[in-house]
Parts: sequence; C-alpha cells; structure tokens
Amino acid sequence: MSADCVLCQEPGGRLVFSCPQFRLIHASEPGLEAFYRIIWNAHVPEWSDLPEAQRWLCMQAVAVVEQAMRDVLAPRKINIASLGNHVPHLHWHVIARFDWDGYFPAPVWAQPHTAPEQLPQDKVAHVRSLRTALEAQMLAQLTLLAEAAATSQPQH
Amino acid sequence: MSADCVLCQEPGGRLVFSCPQFRLIHASEPGLEAFYRIIWNAHVPEWSDLPEAQRWLCMQAVAVVEQAMRDVLAPRKINIASLGNHVPHLHWHVIARFDWDGYFPAPVWAQPHTAPEQLPQDKVAHVRSLRTALEAQMLAQLTLLAEAAATSQPQH
Repeated sequence: MSADCVLCQEPGGRLVFSCPQFRLIHASEPGLEAFYRIIWNAHVPEWSDLPEAQRWLCMQAVAVVEQAMRDVLAPRKINIASLGNHVPHLHWHVIARFDWDGYFPAPVWAQPHTAPEQLPQDKVAHVRSLRTALEAQMLAQLTLLAEAAATSQPQH
Repeated sequence: MSADCVLCQEPGGRLVFSCPQFRLIHASEPGLEAFYRIIWNAHVPEWSDLPEAQRWLCMQAVAVVEQAMRDVLAPRKINIASLGNHVPHLHWHVIARFDWDGYFPAPVWAQPHTAPEQLPQDKVAHVRSLRTALEAQMLAQLTLLAEAAATSQPQH
C-alpha cells in the first residue's frame, strides 16, 4: 500500500471482479466502450517486480479479458498495454478496438480523430448491449483462475 | 506467412536476437533510444491466438527485455504494449522511459512535447553508450530462454 497511490486508495473504475491478487475494472473512457484494466492489488511499479508465478497469473487474467472480448465483441483488434507513467502501480489496459472508434487505427493515447458524440451511435449501442454477456464471461473465467491460484502451488 | 504483412517480409528493425519462435529488434524511433520489439515469427494477429505455452514463452521474452533495461539503464518506467492496429502481426513493444524523454509522462503514441534535437544530449548519449551492455544481457538471457524452449516439453 502506498498512501500517495490512487490505485492503492480506490478501485480505479467500476469493479467487475476482485480476488486477493488482482482486480478487473471497467474504465470510463469516452468513446471507448470496451476498455478494461487488470490491476494488481499490491503496490508494485513494474510487471517484472512480480515473482514468475504471479507474473504469469497476471497475464492469464489479461488473457481471460482478451479472450472474452474476442468471443463476445468480435473487435477489429485487441490492444494491451502496461504503461503506468502517471500511476506507477502495475495495471494492464485491455482494450477492444473497432475500425469505427474515435482513434482507430492509432493507439488510444493519440489524439482522437472523431469525438464520442460523432461516432456511429448504433455501433456504440451494440457494444454496450453486449456488456452484460462480456462481463459474465470474464467473471466466470476469472473466478476459475482465482480458485486455481488459491489452491495450487506456484508452477513457476 | 502473409504476403501482405511487413513483419512476415522484413525483420522490422535492427535484429538483436532470433530463434525459431520469435525475434528481438531494436526500433529506430527518434528520441526514444531504448525502444525494442519482441516479434513473434509466425503470423498471428493476437496474443491469445497462441497456445498457452507459446503465450508464456512470448511473455518470458518480454520479461527478459524489461529486466535487462531495468538492470542496465535504470529507467524511470518500463512501457509494454501489444497493439498491432496497423500491422496485425503479434509484436510487443518494450520501451525504457526516462523523465527527460520527449513524451514523458505521456505514452510514446501521444504528441511529443520535446523534439529529439532538443533533448538533453548528454543523457541521450549516456543511454546510447549502454546499448552494447544492454543487448549483451538481452542476448545471453534470450539464448537461455530459447534453448530451454527447444529442449523442454511445454509446461502449459
């Protein structure tokens, strides 16, 4: 825990799943309907600060989120990133990208070319309508992953 | 192999290391002296296209690059990303970030606030002077990783 770290003090978004090691939140990012973050609960700045078993657990959680996005949303591309320049507390952005989103094909950290209110609203609504199914799959798979992590010995 | 894919046709940068599954290249990105990419050799768009053992091998390679950067360069932060919106062939950006670089604290896909020629040239030169040591560590560790991958059964 770090008293100065927002991700030690707050969930960091709408909480979708939580277990002792990590949590999944939905980020409220205008114009990006399927933007989630796997946040490691302990305050470590870098992914390589984790021992190997935890590093892999973290990436298995990222893979669950990516796979659920692909299964439910069929996005054009998945973007994954661990940056943390502003908030050096390990978190992985997992973002479903669509060729109609306001940044595509640029990364979401570039300047948007289309404002959220100018996006095709039927497509935005469609992604939103799939959110319950998307998060149900994430929740089910992350629950299995967390249970396995709680009961098994580290494999690495 | 995809005939339309630049990463199927070309190394994608200055080759530092290569093994059957992946390669490491140094990217020539102005103002970012320690920008490397782990490129999966087979043409798969998404990280989750890989079976679990290969997915982990890929991330172990990313971890080697990250750890070498931390050991040799002592950067302010490591940034890792798999995007591929322009080139949907799996590759991981691994970037050592410094508080004096032209983008910090923004991601490197934002607009730079400082042009490469305006950066502190002594600091740029210092990072460049460490490149041989940095790549020697990457090469040694990736060689071990590739040897282990070649001789062991998949663990996942």
